[in-house]
Order: sequence, then C-alpha cells, then structure tokens
Amino acid sequence: MLLPTFFRSVEEDYYHLKQHVQLWDVACERQIEVSGPDAQALLQLVIPRDLSKLRAGQCIYTPIVDQDGMVLNDPLTIKLDDERFWVSIADSDIGLLLKGLALGSQMRARVHEPDVSPLAVQGPKAVLLMQRLFGAEIANLKFFRAKQFEFRNHDLWISRSGYSKQGGYEIYLTPASLGEALWDDLMNAGQDLEVRAGCPNLIERIEGGLLSYGNDMTSANTLAECTLDKYFDIDEAPLCIGYAALKREQLDGGPARQVRMLRIDGDRVPACIDPWPLYTPSAPAGQVTSAAWSPDLGENVAIGMVEAAYWDLGRVLNLSCADGSRRTATVKGLV
Amino acid sequence: MLLPTFFRSVEEDYYHLKQHVQLWDVACERQIEVSGPDAQALLQLVIPRDLSKLRAGQCIYTPIVDQDGMVLNDPLTIKLDDERFWVSIADSDIGLLLKGLALGSQMRARVHEPDVSPLAVQGPKAVLLMQRLFGAEIANLKFFRAKQFEFRNHDLWISRSGYSKQGGYEIYLTPASLGEALWDDLMNAGQDLEVRAGCPNLIERIEGGLLSYGNDMTSANTLAECTLDKYFDIDEAPLCIGYAALKREQLDGGPARQVRMLRIDGDRVPACIDPWPLYTPSAPAGQVTSAAWSPDLGENVAIGMVEAAYWDLGRVLNLSCADGSRRTATVKGLV
Repeated sequence: MLLPTFFRSVEEDYYHLKQHVQLWDVACERQIEVSGPDAQALLQLVIPRDLSKLRAGQCIYTPIVDQDGMVLNDPLTIKLDDERFWVSIADSDIGLLLKGLALGSQMRARVHEPDVSPLAVQGPKAVLLMQRLFGAEIANLKFFRAKQFEFRNHDLWISRSGYSKQGGYEIYLTPASLGEALWDDLMNAGQDLEVRAGCPNLIERIEGGLLSYGNDMTSANTLAECTLDKYFDIDEAPLCIGYAALKREQLDGGPARQVRMLRIDGDRVPACIDPWPLYTPSAPAGQVTSAAWSPDLGENVAIGMVEAAYWDLGRVLNLSCADGSRRTATVKGLV
Repeated sequence: MLLPTFFRSVEEDYYHLKQHVQLWDVACERQIEVSGPDAQALLQLVIPRDLSKLRAGQCIYTPIVDQDGMVLNDPLTIKLDDERFWVSIADSDIGLLLKGLALGSQMRARVHEPDVSPLAVQGPKAVLLMQRLFGAEIANLKFFRAKQFEFRNHDLWISRSGYSKQGGYEIYLTPASLGEALWDDLMNAGQDLEVRAGCPNLIERIEGGLLSYGNDMTSANTLAECTLDKYFDIDEAPLCIGYAALKREQLDGGPARQVRMLRIDGDRVPACIDPWPLYTPSAPAGQVTSAAWSPDLGENVAIGMVEAAYWDLGRVLNLSCADGSRRTATVKGLV
C-alpha cells in the first residue's frame, strides 16, 4: 500500500493541515465489503469488540486479531445496513483473511472489494468546505457516524472520521469515474479556504498518538502490546477467535511490552525507516518505530514499543538513531 | 510486492540471462509455511490439483482458487515433509487466506511466514555455478524437485525451478543473517561465468509464456481464462472449494475469454503499465496485459486476454497503445 508522504514538505503540510483543509486521496485504503445474513457474525470472529449493539450508519474502530490475539489490521468498519459492512483496511489484505474465514466456517457472507475509493477531507475548515458541496446538514453528522449524501445524482457514503486529529470527513467515492469531478469540485469550492492536496502527516499523527499499522504495530504484536486492549470487550465478545488468548494475556498480568509516546532529546531526528533500538546500560528496552521533529512542541515526538520494566512515565532510555547518533528518549505516557 | 525490473537495461539483462547466469534476490516472494496434521488437506481446499500423490521433496505449480473458481495466486508449493509445506507466493497475501481458512474450518494446521528469503539462480550457467558452492551432486536434482544442501553449516532447501525458461535453481535462505555470505560466495565463485545481479526479465518471460499474477491474470479471472484449467484434476480434486464452479465452467463450454500470446506490429512498443484495449471495428475484443520488443524474435511479443470470438490463431485485432498509437495485434496461440 503506497501513499505519498508529503506534497510541499512534511512541515509545510503539517502547518497547513492544522490551519486549513486538505484533500487526501487515500483510494489505496481499499474497502472490503462483507455482506449477507452472517456478515456481522463473520466480522465478530476477528474483532474483539462487541458488535451486537452497532447500528446502521455507525462507524467503529476495529482491531482485527487472530487466534493468538495478534493484531492483523486496525480498520474503521462502517455498518451500512444489517447485512452490509465496509471495512477500511490499513496495510494488510484483510479481504483474503475474511474470505478464507467465510469459506472455512461456511458462513453466509460474501467478501469482495467494491469499486469504492475513499477521499479524506481533513483540517479545521473541513466542515465549511463540505457544506458547500453537500449542504449545511453535513455539519450535523456526528463523529464516527456515516450517512449518504448526493453528489451529481449519485448517493455517496460519507463518514465523520479520518486519520488526523484536526477533524473532517471521509468520502467513499463510487463509481471511480466520478473521481475527477469530486476532486475538482472540492478544489474549486475551497479556493478561499486555501484547500490543498495532502496526505496523512507524520508529525501531526505522532503528536496525536495515531498508530500506524505496519510501523508502530505489526502481526508480531498482541492487542495489549498495541494498547488496543481497551477495545477488548471481555464480557461481550467471546465469539472472537482471539478471545481465549486475549483473556489469558489479561489474567497473566498484561503484556510484556507496550506502545508509548516518547520524547527524543536533541535537534531534529533523521527519518525513522527501520526501528531504532532503545536500551539501558545493561539491557535492550524496546524500539522507536515513528519519530519526527514537532515544530509546535519544539521537540522530537516519537512512538515506540517499550519493555514493561522501562515503560513508566519519565523513564529515560538510550537510543541509537539510524544516522549513528546516540540520544536519549524519555517516556511521555500512553498514546 | 516490489521487485526491480532491470539492472543494466531490460535488453542487456535479457541477453545476459540467456547466455550466462544471474542472481535474483526475490526475497519479496515470501514463503508461507503450512504445517500440522491437516496441512495438506488445508492446501487441497484452495488448490484444484490432486495433491494426494505429492511426495516430500517435490515441487508443484499450484494455482489457488476461491469458491467461484477465480484465481487468487499461482505459487510454487514445496512439500518438505508430510506435515510441512512452503508456498512461494506471487503478489497477493495468501498467508491471510490460508489463516482464515484454517481458523474457519478448525483444521489442525498452522500458517505462518518463516524467516525464509528465496534467491533465484537463473541462466544456462546456473548448474555450473551452483556445483561450485553445493557440490557436483546438485546437477542431478531434477526439475521441480527440492532437497537440502549444506551452506556454512546450515542446511538450505534448494529447488530446481525459477521464473525463467533458462533453467536454474531457487535457494530458500534461512536465517536471513546468512544472506550476504551467500550472495558474496555466489558472486565470487561465478566471476569467470560472468555472474551478475538480475531479476525476472520482461522480454524473456513473455517469450516463454510465463504469466504474471496481477498483470496477465487477476482475481477477476477464472482458472480457465488463465489457461490454468489444465491444472484442474476434475476426477481427483473434489475437495477443492472451487470444484463445483470449475466443473460448471467446463460443462458450460469453457471460458468466455482466455489468455493468448500475441504479436504486435510495428516498431518497439512503449511500456505496458495499464492494459491496452483490443477491439474490432464493431466490438471490444480483450486487452493486452504484457508487451515488449523481443530482440531475438525481431518483433513485439505480448500476452493478453482475448474474447472467445476472436482468439483463434492468426486473428488480427486492433490495439490502442498507451502512447496513443493505433496498431494491430495478431493471435499467436496459447501460452
């Protein structure tokens, strides 16, 4: 899954995102449609949250786990109606997992990738811009709710959501042939709002504690290691295949390591492509998986996986950066 | 899945591959390990070939299908022992499909991605080079057979196989830490053989009729459309979930379109990134999915999906290339 990392520069984009509004073409964030009488039951098999009270038009953040409680993805799932869901996947092909699961369990559920291409509209002026195209009513759409709005005689699903802390919407474009019209209409309508092309911003998402699947967490991590055990409904989700493993991890005293926000000392860190090791004079202490200089905070913000013995607030750890520099990283707390 | 497309130029690499020997780092071609008492039964669910007679040390080309007979991948599968298989996948995450299938069907099979990185040694001098590192005996390894050979006190699985028609081997490197030693030893041992870094070569694989998953065939194609129905053992593989759909397609008179080799007239074609439409004066006739100028044949060789009405040998179709040029394409036959 390939996404741009910036349009002008990561910092220019960062300031702009926090002040104005951006269009993010995140069509690579494929939608997996799960439909049929057993659609919800199928999803419940890999989602540790209780889905039984989810209503049509609701969005839900849904870590996806295997039988060992390892995290395979962390999509947003939208319930379109009682027998139809869209799963907006992060970087692993959950469509194939669900397809295998449906076939193996002989559930009455169809899994396919519809012609739906998400476009995120993010930033403090997102509401203003969206109202111009979709009407005043869209301001009333609550966070993590989805509804259909008309665009050029087509009904498009739109949710109040997005991978930033600046607020905004995600438009689920279909058919793809409407793409240029939607893009151009939003660009034209937002000229005085300084609308621009953008993309998920490294600095803003680290500041906001938004984890990136494939970087800050992988299939080698348990739900609790990713601090996502807050989404484990231990009393409500026994149907999830990861239930026994997740319960055992909880009863056994929790995870051996966990994601933490960190501050890295010194001036601007280099790009963190591969994880950087954290250590004490006597032992490995974890790794930094995302890092960037934050202009607003005037410090290097980071996310990392820290061993339990060293994850308490204020703990100072040694860090070996990709450029060979030795620094310290201070634990700032949970994401 | 990202792979280099050439090292010097596609043509230089092509000549070299046909004369000498190349090392291809195809570590991105991940190995999926399926193990446990039900490992073979699990694989049989998605493979339309009869696996019951497969013996340890044998390789088998295994199209993978879903319940509609659509092709989800076309890996080489190696049987290491009765309860352990490696699946060398093309570009789709079959590990997740198999994982879902194992969980849903409650089979006693474990699916994971081991620390195995394939290195292909391809070209007419591959046998000579491999003998220098692994001993004279490796020349006796038959096509599509695999065996363990020693390298620096580790036993490495090696198969006689590869994604070219020039012959050669695939080395399944583990652990990854041996990678540089293996590469350097092969490079040093092969200096007088003109060994070089290489990669699957576009011209050579089109000439040889080697299909590329994601290009010449996708999950939108049935097994027969990909001409892979020759691998459907209709009397032997009723356990495959695609069995009913594949049988129906056969009884209903076969596929509506099918892969064909084509010759494109005129001078050198541009790069074929997206498919090029094939058509007659009155109707669409299919699409070209791979194309390149072949220096040895002195013509543009191509692979495409052609509608049944137009796929007979010698048929001339119109073609619209990416550069806007109008050409003709002639059907040369099956791959």
